[in-house]
Amino acid sequence: MSQSSLLEKLNWRYATKKMDPSKPVPQEKVDQIVEAIRMAPTSSGVQPFEVFVITNPDIRAQIRPVAWDQAQITDGSHLLVFAAWDNYTEERIDAVTSQLTQERGELPLMMDYYTKLKAAYLPRDPEVNYQHAARQAYIALGFALAAAAELKVDSTPMEGFDPAKVDEILGLRERGLRSVLLLPLGTRQDDADWLLPMKKVRKSRETLVTEIA
Amino acid sequence: MSQSSLLEKLNWRYATKKMDPSKPVPQEKVDQIVEAIRMAPTSSGVQPFEVFVITNPDIRAQIRPVAWDQAQITDGSHLLVFAAWDNYTEERIDAVTSQLTQERGELPLMMDYYTKLKAAYLPRDPEVNYQHAARQAYIALGFALAAAAELKVDSTPMEGFDPAKVDEILGLRERGLRSVLLLPLGTRQDDADWLLPMKKVRKSRETLVTEIA
Repeated sequence: MSQSSLLEKLNWRYATKKMDPSKPVPQEKVDQIVEAIRMAPTSSGVQPFEVFVITNPDIRAQIRPVAWDQAQITDGSHLLVFAAWDNYTEERIDAVTSQLTQERGELPLMMDYYTKLKAAYLPRDPEVNYQHAARQAYIALGFALAAAAELKVDSTPMEGFDPAKVDEILGLRERGLRSVLLLPLGTRQDDADWLLPMKKVRKSRETLVTEIA
Repeated sequence: MSQSSLLEKLNWRYATKKMDPSKPVPQEKVDQIVEAIRMAPTSSGVQPFEVFVITNPDIRAQIRPVAWDQAQITDGSHLLVFAAWDNYTEERIDAVTSQLTQERGELPLMMDYYTKLKAAYLPRDPEVNYQHAARQAYIALGFALAAAAELKVDSTPMEGFDPAKVDEILGLRERGLRSVLLLPLGTRQDDADWLLPMKKVRKSRETLVTEIA
């Protein structure tokens, strides 16, 4: 079997270090990346995060210095910020079941499932719930990166920033959100990116994978 | 712009509830899914997890009862277990820099970067480091799900299991690993899966996404 086209694209992608400000990503491609994020599966289908798509230059200029001055934040054309719920609440879970009921009809087993979910989630430490919500955003990040690669859009996933500062700039805490990931989208500047000519390094399959047959 | 083929496939995928034991996933497809996992980006390129690919029926039969008796674990043909590092250690980070040096040559800036990384990671509470490592496994899960969809392989991501029990069955803690995710791969049984005929439900773009222009 030949290598799938997706695998080829996943090999093509890399954490772009220098983006060309004169080559913005077409909005239609950004829309498809956002759609992939929306399609990402999450624990119990709760989708416990929001995504901010920032083109505004001033806001991106404010975020850059609290993110180790990484230039892709302003050199790219779009900055995606993944912000996880700071906690699970009754209202947030009820919004999920209300949509499910509207779109699939009244299903007693489904209601029972989410009643149990609330009994498990709501008494927990908010930090535990936030950590769980944040993990779901990482699945969506994986989908975003795969979709971007498929569309030959460059991207740079970033954990290196001061979340409290980004929360403040975007007013996230008032909305019950905490920033967990940044993802600038842009176009690699071939002649100015030190990482581009470097070999892609990954652990060998033997190191990473154990087969139990 | 027409919808990309990847988006079509991401719409096709769903958390398969009933897999047909008579339709195993071809090994070449599993190999490509594993390759997508290997290509997934991780924080500082550390790849702080391992993946177990279990076809052995006895081991899968042991895991099923500690995972809410979910039938896909034994009805599918392959069970992937994502296990995150229980901590960052000097040895583990040094293995990363040693491979980077071997494959890219001696780069002082790179060595400096990982020296600082060790200074940040090694004194931290192991639980903080494990949580960080676990998040990286979720990016790889995203890649695995996208690759499986691309290949029209069915899959069911699972957090619902007793990690301590799975760790024990696979002997993970002795290897400094902790199970974080299960991913059975198989083939949907069209006439026996209650979820298959249901509408895919996702929050609207307006609910999930805020544009800051």
